[in-house]
Amino acid sequence: MSAEYTPAAENDRIRVALLGASGKMGRRAVEAVTAAEDMELVAELTSTDPLERVLEAGATHVVDLTVPDASPDNVAFAVEHGLHTVVGTSGWVQQRRERLQAQLAQHPQVGVLIAPNFSVGSVLASAFAAKASRFFESVEVVELHHPAKLDAPSGTAVRTAEMIAASRAEAGVAPSPDATERDPDGARGAEVDGVRVHAVRLRGLEAHQEVLMGGPGEQLTVRHDAFDRGAYMPGVLLGLRRVAAHPGLTYGLDGYLDLD
Amino acid sequence: MSAEYTPAAENDRIRVALLGASGKMGRRAVEAVTAAEDMELVAELTSTDPLERVLEAGATHVVDLTVPDASPDNVAFAVEHGLHTVVGTSGWVQQRRERLQAQLAQHPQVGVLIAPNFSVGSVLASAFAAKASRFFESVEVVELHHPAKLDAPSGTAVRTAEMIAASRAEAGVAPSPDATERDPDGARGAEVDGVRVHAVRLRGLEAHQEVLMGGPGEQLTVRHDAFDRGAYMPGVLLGLRRVAAHPGLTYGLDGYLDLD
Amino acid sequence: MSAEYTPAAENDRIRVALLGASGKMGRRAVEAVTAAEDMELVAELTSTDPLERVLEAGATHVVDLTVPDASPDNVAFAVEHGLHTVVGTSGWVQQRRERLQAQLAQHPQVGVLIAPNFSVGSVLASAFAAKASRFFESVEVVELHHPAKLDAPSGTAVRTAEMIAASRAEAGVAPSPDATERDPDGARGAEVDGVRVHAVRLRGLEAHQEVLMGGPGEQLTVRHDAFDRGAYMPGVLLGLRRVAAHPGLTYGLDGYLDLD
Amino acid sequence: MSAEYTPAAENDRIRVALLGASGKMGRRAVEAVTAAEDMELVAELTSTDPLERVLEAGATHVVDLTVPDASPDNVAFAVEHGLHTVVGTSGWVQQRRERLQAQLAQHPQVGVLIAPNFSVGSVLASAFAAKASRFFESVEVVELHHPAKLDAPSGTAVRTAEMIAASRAEAGVAPSPDATERDPDGARGAEVDGVRVHAVRLRGLEAHQEVLMGGPGEQLTVRHDAFDRGAYMPGVLLGLRRVAAHPGLTYGLDGYLDLD
Repeated sequence: MSAEYTPAAENDRIRVALLGASGKMGRRAVEAVTAAEDMELVAELTSTDPLERVLEAGATHVVDLTVPDASPDNVAFAVEHGLHTVVGTSGWVQQRRERLQAQLAQHPQVGVLIAPNFSVGSVLASAFAAKASRFFESVEVVELHHPAKLDAPSGTAVRTAEMIAASRAEAGVAPSPDATERDPDGARGAEVDGVRVHAVRLRGLEAHQEVLMGGPGEQLTVRHDAFDRGAYMPGVLLGLRRVAAHPGLTYGLDGYLDLD
Repeated sequence: MSAEYTPAAENDRIRVALLGASGKMGRRAVEAVTAAEDMELVAELTSTDPLERVLEAGATHVVDLTVPDASPDNVAFAVEHGLHTVVGTSGWVQQRRERLQAQLAQHPQVGVLIAPNFSVGSVLASAFAAKASRFFESVEVVELHHPAKLDAPSGTAVRTAEMIAASRAEAGVAPSPDATERDPDGARGAEVDGVRVHAVRLRGLEAHQEVLMGGPGEQLTVRHDAFDRGAYMPGVLLGLRRVAAHPGLTYGLDGYLDLD
Repeated sequence: MSAEYTPAAENDRIRVALLGASGKMGRRAVEAVTAAEDMELVAELTSTDPLERVLEAGATHVVDLTVPDASPDNVAFAVEHGLHTVVGTSGWVQQRRERLQAQLAQHPQVGVLIAPNFSVGSVLASAFAAKASRFFESVEVVELHHPAKLDAPSGTAVRTAEMIAASRAEAGVAPSPDATERDPDGARGAEVDGVRVHAVRLRGLEAHQEVLMGGPGEQLTVRHDAFDRGAYMPGVLLGLRRVAAHPGLTYGLDGYLDLD
Repeated sequence: MSAEYTPAAENDRIRVALLGASGKMGRRAVEAVTAAEDMELVAELTSTDPLERVLEAGATHVVDLTVPDASPDNVAFAVEHGLHTVVGTSGWVQQRRERLQAQLAQHPQVGVLIAPNFSVGSVLASAFAAKASRFFESVEVVELHHPAKLDAPSGTAVRTAEMIAASRAEAGVAPSPDATERDPDGARGAEVDGVRVHAVRLRGLEAHQEVLMGGPGEQLTVRHDAFDRGAYMPGVLLGLRRVAAHPGLTYGLDGYLDLD
């Protein structure tokens, strides 16, 4: 708990200011924070509102769901005023994160969470897959998405494959066995760091991923389904509840999930 | 029931002669026929045994699980002697089937079943997928096999995709929607008659296939798992039980499954 | 095509009047019909609108998504005026259907479809399961729904189990083998006509069902997922497109799906 | 590495004596150890062989796959002679384990692993489920086995449910929501420490388990399939490779899997 944040009573609710309240994610977050019994939504800002409204409303926490151009200034403002901040905006490349860390060094009790993926289930699934894959001869990734998606494979699938490859390399596991001699049309899919990744596109789906691991006589499967944007809200709330206890910058929801 | 096959009593058991009894499939078939209460295994022949043993043993039905070079002569012999025959040997290309049909025209009450795939579940799965896929915007096929398999995708997956494509063409269904613009490593898999097919190879698996169909707000999945060669035996027994009631040549187990 | 329905040209669009347009299903149907290129939504009625508006708008087809108390009068009115009708309202017990059939006898060219389930995928899944289950020793049903559901198992699961049981009885298949001796807490689930049915309740789900069929060395699985109410719209549209070609009363979408 | 075990060279192979070599698991273990490049199978004992053969053969490690009556004496003998031991025999209740720990206190460099479940995948699956389930509103367990199983639910499912319940209790998570009012036939399955457990029995299956976790808009599924006894061998080999580095008694394979 930050010294800059001194609630009158232990049981006081988290006072949340939401930046980007009119976006798709923002509107969902408005609903989620409003419904959370341990939180109070004290300010909803859109791009035309002055940041001072956050202070006037007495917020203790900020959620930034804006755009890459606005996010760094928003977060700098929040940190400057001792407010714990949860960031779901993209574009936080390393250089930006380093600048933020320099600022946070001046505010040692403020916590900031920047999460490229707010789905608790998705983050857990990737972590489990990375951890388990070193115990199996074979591992492949299948991601399934709605047919309007422009990229294949998905960014999450690429990151998952990279995590799996790193875990297996660390443990000295050989590549997955594969005797394929003829595959004229590329049915075996993409290879990401030596891990096969398959991309399915299907009307009716949203965002789904399955990691299949196999050894002699057994299979372990870790599957995550995100049916709609609501999937990201538990991660936002979890971030708000834990950010004060994690001063400094945390990148990735993993750090809050007690995975190690 | 063939006139050439006149059992003493309605309840008599099917008297089976098994050709190719020492092969992998053959040994399984020996077990399966022996265990079937309505059948009697009266002869087990290997490649060195004379075909006359089939007649000496009083067989009424023959199962041919031999090799492509031997199978046509075996079947011709069986038909010549009025024995209903179930064939699991590969290599029965169209020309061979036509020659057999010519012979069967002389023996109008003899039934022969040649099945490229004896798994009842697999045949049902492909048929259902073909039938249903015309009602969904999207359809893709995922096949999963042991990592010693040489070809990708599997022959069954190719045939399933062809059946699906034909069904959708007949119904005038548009291709599955796909907005993919970037897929540098081929994660979207192979395309067979316009249907995406993905091939997974995983230690621990045998032969598995999943057809995914999707429309707005819904998904229909038909999955078949063959865990071991035992999966083909119910199809062999079903063939033996029904072949006498299907005089002439039947190609594919589908014809015995009341699918239409 | 009904003689009472004489379009000016072959390519004329289906002119749809929607009763119950303000309900949950109704609003979805408004969107779906509006988006269908071969249809025109000519009237949207709520409970306070007079039925004559259907005629004034020149509708050729009616969709009834109202309430059990209103539906019989709505359908009688539509039939009286020669309009083909698709009904998604519940409460059409046998007595009501018989009265409607009597009326339809006077209007031999009018088609009415009453469907207890408008999900094409769900109807196909149940039909496939019934057809396939007679070829497998074992069959069980697992239904999964959102946790606000009041009944277990679901009505669809009960009907599916009944269809499976009837199919197996017709084929003389023995009950699924089960050596269970100790099950103190009822983990084996419910028994519906001798078929085990399991009900899972999980936040995040909508309506899902899996039929598992197993034989020696193989498994066949038919799964349907309804992620949201959109799942029912393709069935409503399919009904509208085919109802004129099916004069008289059809009960259940199955009759339109060319399943036999 | 135990001081009592002084290999001539770092790269020496693990010298394994196998007790219970003629049982079902034992025969599999003979194959697995023989195939492992870093191991040498120096002795195979059945119930009539004197334990001294283990010493004569120069074993450094013992695998006990015998029967509950013989296992404690076997393990005591191995520990007495400074041999690291991996135990797959059942019946090691707490009292027996305490007696063994007392003996191990006298041999501080000897390692013993007793594992109720040698499937690495199954152990990982249960651990992941326990860890993840506290982040989801809902959790249920479905276990699927061959139809000759006498108990429902399976012991693994009971232990998994207990682990899940303990994890959720620790995190203060509310029970899974469930509005069921009518379930006359018990479709909702068993309740183990407040966690619903469903048991499916299906011909063709061996031992499978699925933990379903759900939150708003998302689902996380962890599934393990054991297709045959081969599934337990990687766990036995992993135990042999790591037991010398874990002096004292380890109960459960979890302790070797770097899960925390």
